[in-house]
Amino acid sequence: MEKLTVIKVGGKIVEEEDSLKSLLADFSAIEGKKVLVHGGGRSATAIAAQLGIESKMVNGRRITDAETLKVVTMVYAGLVNKTIVARLQALGVNALGLTGADLNYMRSDKRPVKEVDYGFVGDVKEVNSELLADLISKGVVPVLAPLTHDKQGNMLNTNADTIAGEAAKALSKHFDVTLMYCFEKKGVLMDENDDDSVIPEITRPLFDEYVENGIIQGGMIPKLENSFEAISAGVTKVVITKASEINGNCGTVIK
Amino acid sequence: MEKLTVIKVGGKIVEEEDSLKSLLADFSAIEGKKVLVHGGGRSATAIAAQLGIESKMVNGRRITDAETLKVVTMVYAGLVNKTIVARLQALGVNALGLTGADLNYMRSDKRPVKEVDYGFVGDVKEVNSELLADLISKGVVPVLAPLTHDKQGNMLNTNADTIAGEAAKALSKHFDVTLMYCFEKKGVLMDENDDDSVIPEITRPLFDEYVENGIIQGGMIPKLENSFEAISAGVTKVVITKASEINGNCGTVIK
Repeated sequence: MEKLTVIKVGGKIVEEEDSLKSLLADFSAIEGKKVLVHGGGRSATAIAAQLGIESKMVNGRRITDAETLKVVTMVYAGLVNKTIVARLQALGVNALGLTGADLNYMRSDKRPVKEVDYGFVGDVKEVNSELLADLISKGVVPVLAPLTHDKQGNMLNTNADTIAGEAAKALSKHFDVTLMYCFEKKGVLMDENDDDSVIPEITRPLFDEYVENGIIQGGMIPKLENSFEAISAGVTKVVITKASEINGNCGTVIK
Repeated sequence: MEKLTVIKVGGKIVEEEDSLKSLLADFSAIEGKKVLVHGGGRSATAIAAQLGIESKMVNGRRITDAETLKVVTMVYAGLVNKTIVARLQALGVNALGLTGADLNYMRSDKRPVKEVDYGFVGDVKEVNSELLADLISKGVVPVLAPLTHDKQGNMLNTNADTIAGEAAKALSKHFDVTLMYCFEKKGVLMDENDDDSVIPEITRPLFDEYVENGIIQGGMIPKLENSFEAISAGVTKVVITKASEINGNCGTVIK
């Protein structure tokens, strides 16, 4: 199968001119088929504030009431997504910006209310990858905004890591997929105070050992659990690294 | 060639719940291949006002400075486009929201400054219809926002009538295209005070006669000139009617 790289970058990278410029140059230099998944939370918070809407976060997730849903739809699908698409086109990359509603490529259910009512937040239920795969095979580069829909007429706010993971899994039916999560460090670190202590490769037994020893902890645990889940679902490998290193070899490979 | 209907509706129709609901029901009932082109000016003006940005119009066109470009990108490509796409998906229409930057389907040049500096407004220079036509032939229904790009990294604000006309012309290489412009009347009227005095058909000689007699005047003249131009460029027919009549036969046919 042909290789496909799915890269997820957070809002911080795409919302600042210098880092966006570097990212898009690096991304456009990636050989072969590719997909970009982006966040946009900082811009959403900024525009919401300008509109007099307070941003409420619980466990790092945005509480998405009806007004906030409008803001994230404007910011993620409009401002951030189209800025990236136009810039990629200028670099000769035939980008296509998508939300889950477009081509009905990703359907979700509104998250049930338990301890927290997250509002219009979607948990992914179905990925339709056929048209997406066909476009990719024709040289189109999808740029995925962190939004899905419920197929009942509503957009839903969905975490960009989840979008990347679900898209990568579904596309692994059609391609040999590498899923790359970009975060602020070069990779998963042996010593959190030493940025150069990147663990080059993590397998399931190593992961269990590192968790037991306390080397891997906190938010990195679910990130790696999701990575192993992606591997089980057909993704060839997951790489965790810094956005500036997407063409390098210094990240942590999970397989 | 297979039939394709390209329908352009103004912002007013898609920005009010009742008219949007009717429009989408009517649109989803259109048989065969179709494309929807939408405006969104009222929402843009409202959101701009909420953000403290004044909307300046000259000859009915929005002066698009850098801040206004951000607003129209958010509103047209984000809020309005994705609302329509999600609602169409709920009606079983496999919608795909696009700006000209997506798939590089419509490239424009920033309008040169003459008497008026319209700012980031684009005049269409190139339409790449191959991927669009391929998607349409696979059952996808493009929903086109009134935005293009310059392929140098910038989005540009572009009149929805122009987007509809240019898309229809380019798609006439692949389909037997009917272009339908929706406005507030059932069609071009013989007597502007009689809503039922719709002229059923206008040919070029009739048009010249009606203009000479003063029956057709004002903004209807450029609309009809554009319609004749679309016909010359390969569009099979142009229909001018009310949004609520897109499945009816009461409009004015230009051919």
